[in-house]
Amino acid sequence: MKVGTRHYRTIWLNEDGWSVDLIDQRWLPHEFRIENVRTVEGIATAIRDMWVRGAPLIGVTAAYGVAIRMREDPSDAALDDVWERLHATRPTAINLRWALDEMRNRLRPLPEKERAAAAYRLAAEIADEDVELNRAIGRHGLEIIRQIAARKKPGEPVNILTHCNAGWLATVDYGTATAPIYLAMEENIPVHVYVDETRPRNQGAHLTSWEMAGHGVPHTLIVDNAGGHLMQHGMVDMVIVGTDRTTATGDVCNKIGTYLKALAARDNGVPFYVALPSPTIDWTVRDGVKEIPIEERSADEVSYVWGRTADGKVTQVRILPDATPAANPAFDVTPARLVTGLITERGIAEASEDGLLKLFPERAKAA
Amino acid sequence: MKVGTRHYRTIWLNEDGWSVDLIDQRWLPHEFRIENVRTVEGIATAIRDMWVRGAPLIGVTAAYGVAIRMREDPSDAALDDVWERLHATRPTAINLRWALDEMRNRLRPLPEKERAAAAYRLAAEIADEDVELNRAIGRHGLEIIRQIAARKKPGEPVNILTHCNAGWLATVDYGTATAPIYLAMEENIPVHVYVDETRPRNQGAHLTSWEMAGHGVPHTLIVDNAGGHLMQHGMVDMVIVGTDRTTATGDVCNKIGTYLKALAARDNGVPFYVALPSPTIDWTVRDGVKEIPIEERSADEVSYVWGRTADGKVTQVRILPDATPAANPAFDVTPARLVTGLITERGIAEASEDGLLKLFPERAKAA
Repeated sequence: MKVGTRHYRTIWLNEDGWSVDLIDQRWLPHEFRIENVRTVEGIATAIRDMWVRGAPLIGVTAAYGVAIRMREDPSDAALDDVWERLHATRPTAINLRWALDEMRNRLRPLPEKERAAAAYRLAAEIADEDVELNRAIGRHGLEIIRQIAARKKPGEPVNILTHCNAGWLATVDYGTATAPIYLAMEENIPVHVYVDETRPRNQGAHLTSWEMAGHGVPHTLIVDNAGGHLMQHGMVDMVIVGTDRTTATGDVCNKIGTYLKALAARDNGVPFYVALPSPTIDWTVRDGVKEIPIEERSADEVSYVWGRTADGKVTQVRILPDATPAANPAFDVTPARLVTGLITERGIAEASEDGLLKLFPERAKAA
Repeated sequence: MKVGTRHYRTIWLNEDGWSVDLIDQRWLPHEFRIENVRTVEGIATAIRDMWVRGAPLIGVTAAYGVAIRMREDPSDAALDDVWERLHATRPTAINLRWALDEMRNRLRPLPEKERAAAAYRLAAEIADEDVELNRAIGRHGLEIIRQIAARKKPGEPVNILTHCNAGWLATVDYGTATAPIYLAMEENIPVHVYVDETRPRNQGAHLTSWEMAGHGVPHTLIVDNAGGHLMQHGMVDMVIVGTDRTTATGDVCNKIGTYLKALAARDNGVPFYVALPSPTIDWTVRDGVKEIPIEERSADEVSYVWGRTADGKVTQVRILPDATPAANPAFDVTPARLVTGLITERGIAEASEDGLLKLFPERAKAA
């Protein structure tokens, strides 16, 4: 999306035709840094050290890593080696593994001399497919925004609350939860976004706010505590969030705190939507609260806050007594009963097994 | 309560017998600073610049300010003047006004030469009454903890979640929401406290954690987003919070985010209690959500976070893009229907008009 006047993706082929440019997201929102990556080691670092994050973007970055390697050495050994090296950077990232498998499986049958060109073509395809998936999610979500806008006075914005960053920075472009918002902007439907800061890592404050500011979307940052109060007072028309994993029954695993917003939405009759590309549906899980293990991350993420000092330095400060321990569950599960709808690339599903199977009937046969 | 091995109140008479020592809370949890205050101007600064905060503590601090003035000049003019000067420090603080009225009304009938001694006696009485009120709340709340402990395996702690700081630092001693916890410690009932950090001002991270660490209460800091997840997984036995204002019908106005915890408690069958001294009941208000105006505080409280840098300096860092505005509603209202009980100094009331009038029948006559 736009950063000021210019349109960016999160990753793109450099004009030299082979190296990769990407946004180093670690410095946002305080510095907008673009890095030119020319080696597999550089790609591995970008994934491991979270210059890039978000499942789709990690997958595309890895695909370009394979392409860089094929340009150096298109052998089977190099193909296996780059798979291993990149998979090791974030071994639990499902999308990383998927992209690496896809690249290897489609490159291996080709003659060695064709592999480099094919790898770059394939990486670009994976990137473009992500953008198309998100635009499809956006088109379905846009219909909801349009309906709410139709009930408003002319010029009155549709107020949308979002949590964490399921924005273009987590994907190649458009984002998932933000795609309907960006498409509403393209159609000149007035929107205003309440951005949850999203402690502990503050992805809302650091990333979603920066996206909104860069693209010119009217927005207001709030602490995670404030959303319930805003909903009680009619200041939120709808909630849209992303998800890391949705169960076959419509339970939604997403960033910690999502569940609290879903409870407040239900208590105040505010529609609560989840935007998701269908590959994030885990058809093997039925009870999200009971079955999905929740990652416990480092206490340091809670104890220290990143920001910019008065003299412009980006640093972290400790907010707790030294003697106080912190717990840091990274995700929570919002039960399907609290979800108004699941916005997928095929349309909006009711958050239930039936609802999902209506949109994905091929899964019913498998069951 | 204890800070390490020594017992402290938040404010006390210096051993010189006339000046006042108090904890300058602005530096917590990183520095424990005690200030000796010897002038009315010093008392005014301590209240205005929030060295002390919390309604009961502000009232007691003001009372000692009147005493210091009476020692200098016990005239009617000085009495009126000190009332004005101290009232102006935080003109919306109900308890400040109450304490100043109390002092003036009780000192004015006395001969001038008796006023200084009487003022110190009265200030000490107001301080002691606050401690007694909190201990009474603590005794009633302790019964709830005792009942939960009785259902646990021996040695297994009662897990209590709290939000913001309704601790001894907000009062003279014991606190309101924390009084049952400190009394449980005195009785060797094992407890463990989940402390919400309580953005934006982080009173949980800065103050409640420090209290718990100092007194040796087992505790864990969590982000405000985490409580719902913990309750879903049976990790919280009860919630206790304080309140700034409770309506005649039992709606509870408290720090922003309290409502979200009450929703999660209801959704998971976790009892949700509010500890309150009865003077904070506003018998004139019936619908808290509709009638209580919510203070919108400075956006800077959201945009900047205070903490300690690696080199030990206490400073603030900006966490948002410069182009992003922030909203900062400071309180929210938890409807009575979500409150399990109101723990007052007279006992535990059902959160309803009937429930409150049973404990405070003298109010029924007034209605």
